[in-house]
Amino acid sequence: MIPARVPQTSEPVVSGERFAVTYRIRGDEQEALAKAQDICVEQTVEFPASLVPKGLIRESVVGRIETFAPDGAAAFRVVISYAEETAAGELTQLINVIFGNISLKPGIRVEELDLPNSLLKTFKGPRFGVSGLRERWGVWDRPLMCTALKPMGLSSIDLAEMAYQFALGGTDLIKDDHGLSNQPFAPFEERVARCSQAIERANRETGQRSQYWVNITADGSQLHRRARLAKEAGAGALMLAPALIGYGAVRALADDDTLALPIVGHPTFQGSLVTHPENGISHQVLFGQLARLAGIDVSIFPNFGGRFSFSLHECKNIIRGTRAPMGQIKPIFPGPGGGMSLSSVTEMRGVYGKDVIFLIGGGLFQHGPDLVENCRFFRRLVESGG
Amino acid sequence: MIPARVPQTSEPVVSGERFAVTYRIRGDEQEALAKAQDICVEQTVEFPASLVPKGLIRESVVGRIETFAPDGAAAFRVVISYAEETAAGELTQLINVIFGNISLKPGIRVEELDLPNSLLKTFKGPRFGVSGLRERWGVWDRPLMCTALKPMGLSSIDLAEMAYQFALGGTDLIKDDHGLSNQPFAPFEERVARCSQAIERANRETGQRSQYWVNITADGSQLHRRARLAKEAGAGALMLAPALIGYGAVRALADDDTLALPIVGHPTFQGSLVTHPENGISHQVLFGQLARLAGIDVSIFPNFGGRFSFSLHECKNIIRGTRAPMGQIKPIFPGPGGGMSLSSVTEMRGVYGKDVIFLIGGGLFQHGPDLVENCRFFRRLVESGG
Repeated sequence: MIPARVPQTSEPVVSGERFAVTYRIRGDEQEALAKAQDICVEQTVEFPASLVPKGLIRESVVGRIETFAPDGAAAFRVVISYAEETAAGELTQLINVIFGNISLKPGIRVEELDLPNSLLKTFKGPRFGVSGLRERWGVWDRPLMCTALKPMGLSSIDLAEMAYQFALGGTDLIKDDHGLSNQPFAPFEERVARCSQAIERANRETGQRSQYWVNITADGSQLHRRARLAKEAGAGALMLAPALIGYGAVRALADDDTLALPIVGHPTFQGSLVTHPENGISHQVLFGQLARLAGIDVSIFPNFGGRFSFSLHECKNIIRGTRAPMGQIKPIFPGPGGGMSLSSVTEMRGVYGKDVIFLIGGGLFQHGPDLVENCRFFRRLVESGG
Repeated sequence: MIPARVPQTSEPVVSGERFAVTYRIRGDEQEALAKAQDICVEQTVEFPASLVPKGLIRESVVGRIETFAPDGAAAFRVVISYAEETAAGELTQLINVIFGNISLKPGIRVEELDLPNSLLKTFKGPRFGVSGLRERWGVWDRPLMCTALKPMGLSSIDLAEMAYQFALGGTDLIKDDHGLSNQPFAPFEERVARCSQAIERANRETGQRSQYWVNITADGSQLHRRARLAKEAGAGALMLAPALIGYGAVRALADDDTLALPIVGHPTFQGSLVTHPENGISHQVLFGQLARLAGIDVSIFPNFGGRFSFSLHECKNIIRGTRAPMGQIKPIFPGPGGGMSLSSVTEMRGVYGKDVIFLIGGGLFQHGPDLVENCRFFRRLVESGG
């Protein structure tokens, strides 16, 4: 059967600049090679390979296998490059090329991104990054401490009292729990105003500068409304869940010069992308490289040894992703949390070094009966080098 | 050690309305029960259970195990209910409660949602749904046929020529490939204008009403700009990838009365949520129930037997999700695609019935040398009942 011809009267113009994605592909050599060839097609032209017009579409728009090498007994490590133009300068479309339709095929995992400077320049990346945040906060030589306002169900008045106590205890960073949105228990506008005022009051009393991180994750235009409200209330940062609102929306908020606030990324709903070792996206890409492309300044993730499943190795992989060179895209703070206690700070300091934000929520209540004193103890721990 | 007390001066007000999520939890009875109890806490108060204030927070805000029953040899099927207020009337926050942080813990899968009418009423759902789209399209008694403009790399002129041929052949629905965004090969505005005009020209010649579905998936405010441009160009629907832009953004576009266009959901980047049988979200929830809450009218997914990994059973599960009663939220069209050929239409018709949109892309080129004739053949297939 002779197939129909694709109507083509001109060739695409390509710069020759390409970005590369390292995939881990499960299978023996034949299977893995077939999967790699499939990725080249599926992520770009999505068209039967034999029908792709000869010329530049076939040569340059279709992905290209750059290297192909065994990775353990039953998998291969494959670098595939794509024409920079396929990403159209967009983060959503870049992710779509990296791991769009092939997310629906098992046994493929994105391990690492290697983006040319020409592509990196189309992204502003984090506005602050590690050095910008340190300058903003005036804290140069130690890790930072963060805790969370919760449980959901408390009133704005009670959350504000808690925020006051956290700030009085010298907590650097006080974040909304990621589940606080606009519940009737503590409506967004009221909660943000009260908590912000409570922290300011404590700051006046202590002479310190506790910051309030406001969770603005929401539907559609509410996202922008809450960003403005948070800014007006004096928020120290905007917290967002990229898996719920999309990386493109995070990027837009990070790039917004009228906001000009640090962006904190929360890992909720992202688990399916990283918990299976043979599918999805590596920890360093998801919590490091993609976070930085989206303009995230602080990347929160579940610490090893807490109540989640991340291993020490995976957390080290995240550290790498937050710091690895990416052209002009700044390094960012890892923010390990999730069931941590004060007794783990010393060990964490050994793993993360000083450029880290320790996130201890419920565990802060368990140290002793006085919440303010517990915060002071946490502060002394991070000041004394763990 | 006596822990610090949570400051609480008032009790939350809860209506008593609750929504229920059925989870499949891996493990023996003891493990599964511990995981279920953990879900109740993690997805709501995210606070050490023993420190959660007694009273309504503990009784009503914390999730509640409603039923707990074995599901095969090494798993349990557990229904957990949550106070309606935890979702704050937001889709992002509803998803956050259903499967937020626990996505980061292995062995938990969302199987089904059961939402009370009080909660369903806060969502408009699909503007058209199956009956609204049939009325809009004037096609009552048969499945619909859809094909895609590709490969990426073609110019706008060439894509428009292809669109013209598709429409001349009587193709009901002509969609952008999900990888076409704003590449320099065929910039968004030019592509949409040219393809739209080409389809209108063919419609005048045939007297038929082929519709153009425009992919508007993009970063931040570009999303809304492209929605407007597509509307102005006469788009028949807006195509969006929920995993890339977030369900809350999809909802906002679906609810926008100034657009008032059908919404088509594309599964790119969603794979990690469904490909692992022990983690993530079931097919019926992801491509059915959540899609409908977001206002999606047509839910595209990989058909069984194509080049992706979905099974017949999983596709039947999706059909169920697109049609199952959900209060005033309308049933929607399933849109199976992904490596389908014309020879599979009859079998698909048997599985999906008449309320289905068959999506055949590259396969349409392989039937014979004349693309217009191939489309006519496809049309006769769907008209003749498969």
